[in-house]
Amino acid sequence: MVIVMESHATETDLQVVVEHVEALGLKAHPIFGVERIVVGVIGDERLIQKDQLSLIPHVENVIPILKPYKLTSREFKQDDTIIDVAGVKIGGKEMVVIAGPCSVENEEQLLETAYSVKNAGAKLLRGGAYKPRTSPYVFQGLGEEGLKLLMKAKDETGLGIVTEVMETADVELVAEYADLLQVGARNMQNTRLLRSLGKVKKPILLKRNFSATLNEFLMSAEYILSGGNDQVILCERGIRTFVEYTRNTLDLNVVPAVKQLSHLPIIVDPSHGTGRHDFVLPLSRAAIAAGADGLIIEVHPHPAQAFSDGEQSLTFEAFHQLMKEVNVIVQAMGRNC
Amino acid sequence: MVIVMESHATETDLQVVVEHVEALGLKAHPIFGVERIVVGVIGDERLIQKDQLSLIPHVENVIPILKPYKLTSREFKQDDTIIDVAGVKIGGKEMVVIAGPCSVENEEQLLETAYSVKNAGAKLLRGGAYKPRTSPYVFQGLGEEGLKLLMKAKDETGLGIVTEVMETADVELVAEYADLLQVGARNMQNTRLLRSLGKVKKPILLKRNFSATLNEFLMSAEYILSGGNDQVILCERGIRTFVEYTRNTLDLNVVPAVKQLSHLPIIVDPSHGTGRHDFVLPLSRAAIAAGADGLIIEVHPHPAQAFSDGEQSLTFEAFHQLMKEVNVIVQAMGRNC
Amino acid sequence: MVIVMESHATETDLQVVVEHVEALGLKAHPIFGVERIVVGVIGDERLIQKDQLSLIPHVENVIPILKPYKLTSREFKQDDTIIDVAGVKIGGKEMVVIAGPCSVENEEQLLETAYSVKNAGAKLLRGGAYKPRTSPYVFQGLGEEGLKLLMKAKDETGLGIVTEVMETADVELVAEYADLLQVGARNMQNTRLLRSLGKVKKPILLKRNFSATLNEFLMSAEYILSGGNDQVILCERGIRTFVEYTRNTLDLNVVPAVKQLSHLPIIVDPSHGTGRHDFVLPLSRAAIAAGADGLIIEVHPHPAQAFSDGEQSLTFEAFHQLMKEVNVIVQAMGRNC
Amino acid sequence: MVIVMESHATETDLQVVVEHVEALGLKAHPIFGVERIVVGVIGDERLIQKDQLSLIPHVENVIPILKPYKLTSREFKQDDTIIDVAGVKIGGKEMVVIAGPCSVENEEQLLETAYSVKNAGAKLLRGGAYKPRTSPYVFQGLGEEGLKLLMKAKDETGLGIVTEVMETADVELVAEYADLLQVGARNMQNTRLLRSLGKVKKPILLKRNFSATLNEFLMSAEYILSGGNDQVILCERGIRTFVEYTRNTLDLNVVPAVKQLSHLPIIVDPSHGTGRHDFVLPLSRAAIAAGADGLIIEVHPHPAQAFSDGEQSLTFEAFHQLMKEVNVIVQAMGRNC
Repeated sequence: MVIVMESHATETDLQVVVEHVEALGLKAHPIFGVERIVVGVIGDERLIQKDQLSLIPHVENVIPILKPYKLTSREFKQDDTIIDVAGVKIGGKEMVVIAGPCSVENEEQLLETAYSVKNAGAKLLRGGAYKPRTSPYVFQGLGEEGLKLLMKAKDETGLGIVTEVMETADVELVAEYADLLQVGARNMQNTRLLRSLGKVKKPILLKRNFSATLNEFLMSAEYILSGGNDQVILCERGIRTFVEYTRNTLDLNVVPAVKQLSHLPIIVDPSHGTGRHDFVLPLSRAAIAAGADGLIIEVHPHPAQAFSDGEQSLTFEAFHQLMKEVNVIVQAMGRNC
Repeated sequence: MVIVMESHATETDLQVVVEHVEALGLKAHPIFGVERIVVGVIGDERLIQKDQLSLIPHVENVIPILKPYKLTSREFKQDDTIIDVAGVKIGGKEMVVIAGPCSVENEEQLLETAYSVKNAGAKLLRGGAYKPRTSPYVFQGLGEEGLKLLMKAKDETGLGIVTEVMETADVELVAEYADLLQVGARNMQNTRLLRSLGKVKKPILLKRNFSATLNEFLMSAEYILSGGNDQVILCERGIRTFVEYTRNTLDLNVVPAVKQLSHLPIIVDPSHGTGRHDFVLPLSRAAIAAGADGLIIEVHPHPAQAFSDGEQSLTFEAFHQLMKEVNVIVQAMGRNC
Repeated sequence: MVIVMESHATETDLQVVVEHVEALGLKAHPIFGVERIVVGVIGDERLIQKDQLSLIPHVENVIPILKPYKLTSREFKQDDTIIDVAGVKIGGKEMVVIAGPCSVENEEQLLETAYSVKNAGAKLLRGGAYKPRTSPYVFQGLGEEGLKLLMKAKDETGLGIVTEVMETADVELVAEYADLLQVGARNMQNTRLLRSLGKVKKPILLKRNFSATLNEFLMSAEYILSGGNDQVILCERGIRTFVEYTRNTLDLNVVPAVKQLSHLPIIVDPSHGTGRHDFVLPLSRAAIAAGADGLIIEVHPHPAQAFSDGEQSLTFEAFHQLMKEVNVIVQAMGRNC
Repeated sequence: MVIVMESHATETDLQVVVEHVEALGLKAHPIFGVERIVVGVIGDERLIQKDQLSLIPHVENVIPILKPYKLTSREFKQDDTIIDVAGVKIGGKEMVVIAGPCSVENEEQLLETAYSVKNAGAKLLRGGAYKPRTSPYVFQGLGEEGLKLLMKAKDETGLGIVTEVMETADVELVAEYADLLQVGARNMQNTRLLRSLGKVKKPILLKRNFSATLNEFLMSAEYILSGGNDQVILCERGIRTFVEYTRNTLDLNVVPAVKQLSHLPIIVDPSHGTGRHDFVLPLSRAAIAAGADGLIIEVHPHPAQAFSDGEQSLTFEAFHQLMKEVNVIVQAMGRNC
């Protein structure tokens, strides 16, 4: 950390700061600038709270130098982490497409979709059994029955299963069925859930919250990694901005940012990220071109009759077309899918 | 809802839309404008999904007319809801101040703070036993031991207790100790938790998420009300914007907006809303002047040594001063505290 | 500035940085931390560009320590600046209300409004002669004819005139008529205009842009001050956020932030800040309680027939009521109006 | 427009609304819903102000149906507009790269850069002679001398010139030198400047403001088109959000949104959009994959010594590498560059 003193701070004020710093087991290194005294603090700043220094009298500002995360950082682990989800490798040369309906609605809808997305080239099947909906008056998911249908789809198609877990109490049950457990955007800072997923022996798909900074996003991953589970895939799914033509603002800048700061793979969800089926194709191509390791896309046999998120779901035909167009970009990037 | 047809839509396209609308049990009412056909839809639009209409061919847009919430709305209940928390009425003429430490740290810290805020005029004691922290490496709260200390503080001072519940599994336990159960900003859309709080016989303090629209905020309240618990107090605690001089941007515009659309009380948290102890006083005054029904403020005997949120905590002295200055505005507003 | 080296940077890398810093006429002060080398830079960082240091190999980050503005800062001038606008003092003990129509439409509308706001207690008259509108198809202001009507209103009522200047070419003309020249939010970073206003002998009302950080806001003031005109009044008028119930999000947090960092007065525009006439009263009270030095409020004899901004304009009756209610808060704050 | 009446509005209230609508020369078409009366308004809503209806008693809300722009819309002109800039076609099959320094600094810097970007495949040369800077204390551009250097670079390399015009007074001069006149983000709503550019016989590059909605962006184009100049190229260059790892948040979602609603070409500026040279390549690829018609990229012989924007400028080597990698994506998109 760097402590910036107020412009009128005296040597005596500085002395108080130095004593505080040393009392915390750190070393203080004052620099006498032209307009201000600045104090470099030597030691592991992650173990102390910024407030303990910023509230000392005549301290104007305390600036952290180190990133707050460790295990998640590229510095801790230089090589890209490649995660195996039911035999599919995410984070390596392959660009992986996960597809399926927003919600599991019934056996026919799910199986039909599973076969279709498999034929188009998807490698994993998504489908929600537990749905966090904005309104209490709409469909909230089939629950365990949905999980059983997902298992059936896996048995029939061989596609690994990606599904959301909404709270600690469900982790064990969902982990029995899922190959990749999804943490939804609204739960990105549900620290209890994150802790319990640190104990699970399955990979985790961690979706970024609408308003999460990159530090917060990676700190949520750090909860899982520090709990003992280093199989975390990050997912960008749109941030909240003033923009009105998309449900969220899909932020592709985060892809190179994550690649630089972390070893974890990152995939992109253009369905939630834009909320519009007609924008899914261009933003899918863009996500791959930005360097994403995969896509997660909503597909439904009849979007207009979907129980949820119909406006952002692709028909089978549109998804097949997308896979063809996406494949051209994947190859241009020197990857395969 | 109002369905806007594309500019080139034909009578046949319109016919398809009308049939869809009628198949949903609603009535369609076409209006032939100069540039477009628009279809008024008659019936309860809350029971259908917008997607079911927006995905019909040649529909350009579907515009909801009704608010998505019912029980929470001012139309449903015209009179202000007044909520009794351990004998303290929130939402009426009184402007109520809730104060206390961010985290319960130990008995001495809590009791000392409880007595001090009581003397200054606070009516309820806040204190976190379960803490959702951004970092897994810092203090996460004392848990049930913290609840017991809160109960002890209540026994000694008579102040009712406000504390956070983080997940469904804890609801029963926390409800034994708390007089007002707080849902934190990160959990505002934890729908499982909201549902379980709908069954509790205690009032709920629902904090607004950093990126929640007003519709989303009120829909989260609707989860609790529709579950059977109509004792919900809303709390503004800052939204996430581009602004850099406060940790969040305390949004006082939401106060009159809530008052207009809902019968529920709303209080303001200037401590989290600004993240800066030196801004708590002016924004407390402003919140009251905007019409808030109460304040929730962090107070700590030694902010620089607080286990969490020291930068936004007031000392006892600052809190006593705040109560004096706040009281002048409360009286100017024709209320009392 | 503080230069943070990459974690693997060597002594040789450091040496390169030190040489660069010294070549810029500054002194480098390396600190060897546990995980990183950090270099304190001594000298006036405002005179160099951050990029000149951040692009040196193995530099991870460059952190500015000093604020980029000087003349605008509280450090440069500790006492509050009080600005005299046609005999009305802004920035002192008095809380000043500026009121009038969004646009000057015709003599009757303007004079009627001027007399009414004066009777209610407003001290200055606002009115736009040049209007920056989103649409090219709507009323763009009366231009110089509007300025003449404003002068007539001043002659009749004695109220000083506040009106917008939109570009450098108009500065001289507008300065002949206006007592306070307004820079609109869209022009906050029109640096040519700001420079030309630095040469004017009249006070300037600088409105914050929708997306301006505080640094940018104060740097725009710095343009005017550094040009030789130290009579600048700042004005908060709402920022752009995701929020949907107000046209902008009036940000009252900026009031104490400006008071802390600058000696310039700050007033608040709740009309543009909320875009809703029914929110003007509560946010006016809140602005005063937050410490604003004044309000600027849109008033129109018949808002539904206004050429612009009718939705946020108060009727005469509503404005008279507002002045009464606002006065109670002004007195509670120990000020007068 | 659709007028939504309050839930308790009576037939008499409705009658007042109908009379108002008819007095404006429009037709009113009431629909009696289950919970509310809604009034469809028939006629060209662009000619009236929303406020004229929203302020009628017992009107709850007025919802516009038509887009506010006309000439800019895809409905007005279905085919893509292709714009010829010094012989280079923008908006057609070709993906055009504009490159050059942020600021024109001197002859050597400019010519060296011009030759290098031309060799790498850029089709037009950018360079600022007039610079709108946040700080009054830094380089503000060479002015007309810069324009002359640009002309010299054009004479030598044959590259057409793209440069910014900052105010109306400069339009004539800049138009003498430039092949494409740039309106900077800060001037997107400088309506005077936009109007004067409507009279120019040269194409305009209109950059999106940090906080502009799509409606506002297209309305600014409408100012130019309605003035008589239909040669407008749009440019996305990042919006302001809460995100901290990029200077702005480059919003690629706007590319398909513009393509859907307008016939005008859109290019992307990943240099300003991210503010980071190391993110320019991935976001350039992504922009093309999202469907952008071109890129505008900052290149400098020695970024660390640039007078402005060094952190986001590419070296010659990095730019040549970018052009190679970008070309692969351009071809994958079935375009050429």
